[in-house]
Amino acid sequence: MQRVAVIGAGPSGLSALRAFQAKAEQGEPIPTVVCFERQSDWGGQWNATWRVGTDELGEPVHSSMYPNLWSNGPKECLELADYSFEEHFGRPIPSYPPRAVLADYIAGRARKAGVRSWIRFSSAVRMVRFDAATSTFSVTVHNLTEDAMYTETFDYLIVASGHFSVPHVPQVDGMETFRGRVLHAHDFRNASEFKGQRVLIVGRSYSAEDIGSQVWKFGAASVTISYRSAPMAFDALPPNWSQCPQLKRVDGSACHFLDGTSGEFDSIILCTGYVHHYPFLPDELRLRTPTSLYPRGLYRGVVWMRNPRVFYLGSQDQWYTFSHFDLMAWWARDVILGRIALPPQAQMEADTDAWAKRESTLVGDQQAVEFQGDHARALQRETDYPYFDTGAVDRLFVEFEHAKHQDFMGYRDLSHRSIITGTVAPAPCMPWRSKMDDSVAGFLHQHGHDR
Amino acid sequence: MQRVAVIGAGPSGLSALRAFQAKAEQGEPIPTVVCFERQSDWGGQWNATWRVGTDELGEPVHSSMYPNLWSNGPKECLELADYSFEEHFGRPIPSYPPRAVLADYIAGRARKAGVRSWIRFSSAVRMVRFDAATSTFSVTVHNLTEDAMYTETFDYLIVASGHFSVPHVPQVDGMETFRGRVLHAHDFRNASEFKGQRVLIVGRSYSAEDIGSQVWKFGAASVTISYRSAPMAFDALPPNWSQCPQLKRVDGSACHFLDGTSGEFDSIILCTGYVHHYPFLPDELRLRTPTSLYPRGLYRGVVWMRNPRVFYLGSQDQWYTFSHFDLMAWWARDVILGRIALPPQAQMEADTDAWAKRESTLVGDQQAVEFQGDHARALQRETDYPYFDTGAVDRLFVEFEHAKHQDFMGYRDLSHRSIITGTVAPAPCMPWRSKMDDSVAGFLHQHGHDR
Repeated sequence: MQRVAVIGAGPSGLSALRAFQAKAEQGEPIPTVVCFERQSDWGGQWNATWRVGTDELGEPVHSSMYPNLWSNGPKECLELADYSFEEHFGRPIPSYPPRAVLADYIAGRARKAGVRSWIRFSSAVRMVRFDAATSTFSVTVHNLTEDAMYTETFDYLIVASGHFSVPHVPQVDGMETFRGRVLHAHDFRNASEFKGQRVLIVGRSYSAEDIGSQVWKFGAASVTISYRSAPMAFDALPPNWSQCPQLKRVDGSACHFLDGTSGEFDSIILCTGYVHHYPFLPDELRLRTPTSLYPRGLYRGVVWMRNPRVFYLGSQDQWYTFSHFDLMAWWARDVILGRIALPPQAQMEADTDAWAKRESTLVGDQQAVEFQGDHARALQRETDYPYFDTGAVDRLFVEFEHAKHQDFMGYRDLSHRSIITGTVAPAPCMPWRSKMDDSVAGFLHQHGHDR
Repeated sequence: MQRVAVIGAGPSGLSALRAFQAKAEQGEPIPTVVCFERQSDWGGQWNATWRVGTDELGEPVHSSMYPNLWSNGPKECLELADYSFEEHFGRPIPSYPPRAVLADYIAGRARKAGVRSWIRFSSAVRMVRFDAATSTFSVTVHNLTEDAMYTETFDYLIVASGHFSVPHVPQVDGMETFRGRVLHAHDFRNASEFKGQRVLIVGRSYSAEDIGSQVWKFGAASVTISYRSAPMAFDALPPNWSQCPQLKRVDGSACHFLDGTSGEFDSIILCTGYVHHYPFLPDELRLRTPTSLYPRGLYRGVVWMRNPRVFYLGSQDQWYTFSHFDLMAWWARDVILGRIALPPQAQMEADTDAWAKRESTLVGDQQAVEFQGDHARALQRETDYPYFDTGAVDRLFVEFEHAKHQDFMGYRDLSHRSIITGTVAPAPCMPWRSKMDDSVAGFLHQHGHDR
């Protein structure tokens, strides 16, 4: 029996388990699949915690999510083709749910598939080695609850450990003199901790947008965005928001920016992104990439060309997320099952180079979305993942981006049509900016029903 | 040439390097010593940073120290016998210096020894394996600046990676509902972040004492200590301090204690200790111990009895610190050099059991200090580490503890006599509670001289 190791039981890892289980459901033989998850539960990023820094077993806290995190894109853009939101919740729900609702949804599909027993929780992969003679991987795992290590052998390796867990924390001159609090977005938890504060946000991407909105919603005195290349381009930022160029130097509570301006702040939140970090992989298997829609080295964005028994899931910068993970998981599964034959090395490299070259030319959100849509379509053509209209996903992303730029604090009140079921989402019962209950029960109850 | 790997270039690791270098200085042959340090500089705990959580290379932040951390014991109790404070600073200095002064001192001895070139910085040890056939260790190291892994072989392993870096963060019911900030002492930085706040401190040991004092000094509205077994027993806690039994449950901003009382707080600081964490060591080499003055498995508190080519330095709960690390390092070195012969296994075990048994009977600070003093004396008898009067160290610890209990916010203003040089420390120029400058220059300048 062939053996497949999956590292991580977040959305991508669960996609991998579901991909294999879907084939087994059809009565086909599948290899033994063992998933190693460092945390004590599944969900990856979506398994949020009040902890920062270190978890109860001494491992780095994985999730970067926080209370009152609401989806920053339409749920219709990430809906799984084999498991709709309507199926999970028993009725249509609004388009922008809070974290707990999405976590519940992801877990629901995995529960339905019955794959929980495939996962070894509280199990940190410490080291992987590849033995070329036998074409197998030795995976050394630390059972954290028993504080015991062991090594098992596998024929394939699927890396699904995520890349939004290990913060990129740049050096800033004089930061050690700052008298207030400095934290990275990864350690952000309760927005109300910043009530009444003058908050400086370093960075202008998704974390900056969302954490800026959170601290604004929960009563920060002011929000200042420090951008590197270009300011946020929203039509209507709230009146207590402002934008400054790059933070150059900190001196006590004064922050000095590249254009010579300066300001006083109570807290600095570094929304400076995350790094790919695979400390358990040897050099020859380790993806080294900046944030990218098509990281180098991966054919179809999935298979590690230097050793095509290794697969990475979800290593891309993401628009699509869940459904894209599924497409990649189905594709990886079919390579492992021998249903997809990989082309010769040179052809894989030429194909991957072409994608990378195209990525370097992308301008604006629409081109980026369509690039990822094309990636999804390329995978879709080669797998039996249930068909869904990726063109419609692309168009909805563009529509949503437009709406977000027009009404930064209001776009989450829109409703969209499910691409999977065709149902139009009900309107939320109150605007996002007034919603303070981010629980599943609270969200569903607001829409007129107890679960 | 025999090869010794030292993991960590904090005080214990630097003691190991100095121990070997001291022998080389006497013209004796020594093995090749390679020290792997995850951080980009030496000092371990004392190499403080403004960062929390993750460092600039994606590794967990090592140091738990913070601005305005002042020694919580007399420097005369940790003074190195081969390198006095007076030698380092060129004159006597007060008894309770800030962190930067102690960091400078430790680095000064290492610089004088000329061992910096023995250290590979930004080098995280990922995995160690022992090959019984060759009696050698394979040490797999991640060069973080080049993001490259390699494996080298060694004959001996000295583990000096510390045990005050990975927090013990207990589960508390309802903690996820708390509306303020929750952090572990490991992530504490600027006390002024808590100005005006009602701070709940969970725990009553050294971190609780010190962080409580810090937030009090920098203007917290109130400090509440939640203790598990017994309250702090200081004669005069400030009027805005109070103490409660164990924290049982959190509900919003209300914290409920074991005796049925409750209170509202703005922040919760978990001063709940640290765990031994050696994720790079296989089971058969890994120390598993709670905080202890004499962890099980280590003969003389140093050599790993299951594999006496492995040594742990500084794994004890500490009173003595620096000079104790030196004694253990000198002793480990002499075992490696064959100058100390280990007794038979059964005798080592019986000896270790006797220490453990004695530890279990200790009551109060004086007995604990004298226990560690006896450990120091046992090492002292077997090595050529320069003699110093450990009895005097014991007595000074007891005297200091007494003073601390009498005047919790004033004991750092006392002056003690150096056990190494005999010089009495000058009085500080202003009381600790008024001192806001924790720099080396500030500390030395306050005493009438620029360096």
